Amino acid sequence: MLGEQVATQVDQWIAERTKSFDSSGIRKVFSLAKKLKDPVNLSIGQPDFDVPDSVKASLIDAVNSGKNGYAQTQGIAPLRSKLQAEIDANFGHDDREVFVCSGTSGGLVLTIMSIINDGDEVIFFDPFFVMYDSLIQLMGGVPVPISNYPDFRLDLEKVKAAVTDKTKMILLNSPSNPTGICADPADLKAIAEFAAEKGICLVSDEIYSKFVYDHQHVSPAQWNPNTIVIDGFSKSYAMTGLRVAYVHGPAALINTMLKVQQYTFVCAPQPAQWAAVDALDFDVTPLVDQYRAKRDMMIDGLKNDYEIATPGGAFYIFPKLPWGTGEEFIARAIENNLLVIPGNIFSYSDTHFRISYAASEQKLEQGIEILKRIAKP
Amino acid sequence: MLGEQVATQVDQWIAERTKSFDSSGIRKVFSLAKKLKDPVNLSIGQPDFDVPDSVKASLIDAVNSGKNGYAQTQGIAPLRSKLQAEIDANFGHDDREVFVCSGTSGGLVLTIMSIINDGDEVIFFDPFFVMYDSLIQLMGGVPVPISNYPDFRLDLEKVKAAVTDKTKMILLNSPSNPTGICADPADLKAIAEFAAEKGICLVSDEIYSKFVYDHQHVSPAQWNPNTIVIDGFSKSYAMTGLRVAYVHGPAALINTMLKVQQYTFVCAPQPAQWAAVDALDFDVTPLVDQYRAKRDMMIDGLKNDYEIATPGGAFYIFPKLPWGTGEEFIARAIENNLLVIPGNIFSYSDTHFRISYAASEQKLEQGIEILKRIAKP
Repeated sequence: MLGEQVATQVDQWIAERTKSFDSSGIRKVFSLAKKLKDPVNLSIGQPDFDVPDSVKASLIDAVNSGKNGYAQTQGIAPLRSKLQAEIDANFGHDDREVFVCSGTSGGLVLTIMSIINDGDEVIFFDPFFVMYDSLIQLMGGVPVPISNYPDFRLDLEKVKAAVTDKTKMILLNSPSNPTGICADPADLKAIAEFAAEKGICLVSDEIYSKFVYDHQHVSPAQWNPNTIVIDGFSKSYAMTGLRVAYVHGPAALINTMLKVQQYTFVCAPQPAQWAAVDALDFDVTPLVDQYRAKRDMMIDGLKNDYEIATPGGAFYIFPKLPWGTGEEFIARAIENNLLVIPGNIFSYSDTHFRISYAASEQKLEQGIEILKRIAKP
Repeated sequence: MLGEQVATQVDQWIAERTKSFDSSGIRKVFSLAKKLKDPVNLSIGQPDFDVPDSVKASLIDAVNSGKNGYAQTQGIAPLRSKLQAEIDANFGHDDREVFVCSGTSGGLVLTIMSIINDGDEVIFFDPFFVMYDSLIQLMGGVPVPISNYPDFRLDLEKVKAAVTDKTKMILLNSPSNPTGICADPADLKAIAEFAAEKGICLVSDEIYSKFVYDHQHVSPAQWNPNTIVIDGFSKSYAMTGLRVAYVHGPAALINTMLKVQQYTFVCAPQPAQWAAVDALDFDVTPLVDQYRAKRDMMIDGLKNDYEIATPGGAFYIFPKLPWGTGEEFIARAIENNLLVIPGNIFSYSDTHFRISYAASEQKLEQGIEILKRIAKP
């Protein structure tokens, strides 16, 4: 009786903001995954290589030399100045400042917290990175997803149609998770200029900026000086568990984010920031070449059996389901020892699925073989 | 003209939640501090020793063995199971679960985000850790500080008088930052039982739990099974920049916090979690003995010139200002090459100042000498 009373009390304490979203979809996939022994796991959103040795060495030096205390809220000076120089060279914006945050997710959290009021609408393209939708709702905002199936093009006309007087932000992600698609520069330019003209805050999540295979990476910030850009080290240098990233944008917004960081994340982990200084000098070209080859291998292997918009970046492809619902198809994949992610984790539609090719060639070959086998119901 | 227009646009984007607090007070102190060369710096809220060698070795092993990717949202299994065993042994609560977060600040953020709705009142004692006030406001809550000057006792009668039908949470901090005071167990018990009876969520920030000098650390959770306890590794093992801590409490609340963590912090840095596993076996007794001696040294050195409530824990003392305002007194201290923090950073009152004795004996001696010299206006 007391037990029941206590449980009721606890349940009543849970804040409303946490009830607007759940994480059961992805949990379901991962709990299925746990049942498999040595699966062909093409579900992972992080590189299959390890942190480069020189980057590890910098982290270890930092730890050994006692750089284990709080860093400045905005990040250690050597990392900031190196990033700032790079950003100044790329954009030449007078008012653009950078700070170091705890992962690109941390950067997104600070961006949304610093800009979105209750009821503000945030436009983004569907399919989308899993966090967008939930994080916007967590902070009282209203997600406004715009479908860009089946070619995943960023279409200004669709943005125009979605804008209301409540639109506060447009959130772009190129190269995209889960599609791997790199936006057409002309489309980025059109949206960047439209946002500037309408006074809508443009946010560009560029965490996969280093993983581009066919063209140079393009940031919409080059056409819109008030764009907030979020980028980081997690994907490029396999540092997902080290939690370092950075945000750059107009000084007033960066200062607001720093004020919020001071009372939330405090600072990004210090030793990892020293590792990041070194990472900026590391040439990722050989890794990018490997991933390009893996992308080509996946597309070649699957193009006769699956409908795929060929991606130019990241390490994902997002084929159309060949039959059934996502749940049905993923269940079949799991029966065949293959782990991929149903598209409705990243989307309001249930028509596609995500393959990560951040895996060994051998696993990718096995994955292709299984996918060809289950392409018919 | 365009420049002006653009600046206005950016300023208009800043979210209301960020305007309810500022961080200018502490910034002012630290910018003053920058002007000093080799100051007697008694302002720092972190240990003056480095991370223990065995703990560093564990972190480095983790990095070298490739444990650099995402950790599970709830933390790595070896750390969780070790913490859970310790917590079960201490409390024996059926429903108490633990997870790993990014610093105790991260634990506080998740606690407030998971429980506080707009307009909910949070009671805490003044003086208080700088983050409480701002973080509650950032999440739409209403801070209800209760003055506990001059003896810094936790008085249930004052809590009762502050409770309204909007009271959602009582937030305790023993040992306290900035006073160093350890709450009387009878007072903790009274508040813990009162919170349980009234269905108010009790949160206990115990980050200084290992730094207690006169008695064993006492958690109010032992009298209230629904208490949320936040503790960590930052202070005990000088790991402030490594960002690892933990939260334990009723399963339903912990699960809610994990859902929020998944979309905000993602996970605590992985290598630091492996370091934390080792840290749990490290005996801090010699360090605690050192800090006890430093506390005694400060109290002995200052007791004839300052009014001080003798602290039993943490590494702070919080004397009454001997004259003038905090700003005036701190300016005089800085003129004399001493850095301490004005009490109004931690308080709605401007009557005290904080000394951190996490410094070398030599610096502490110099600090005492300066403080004695400026004790008269």
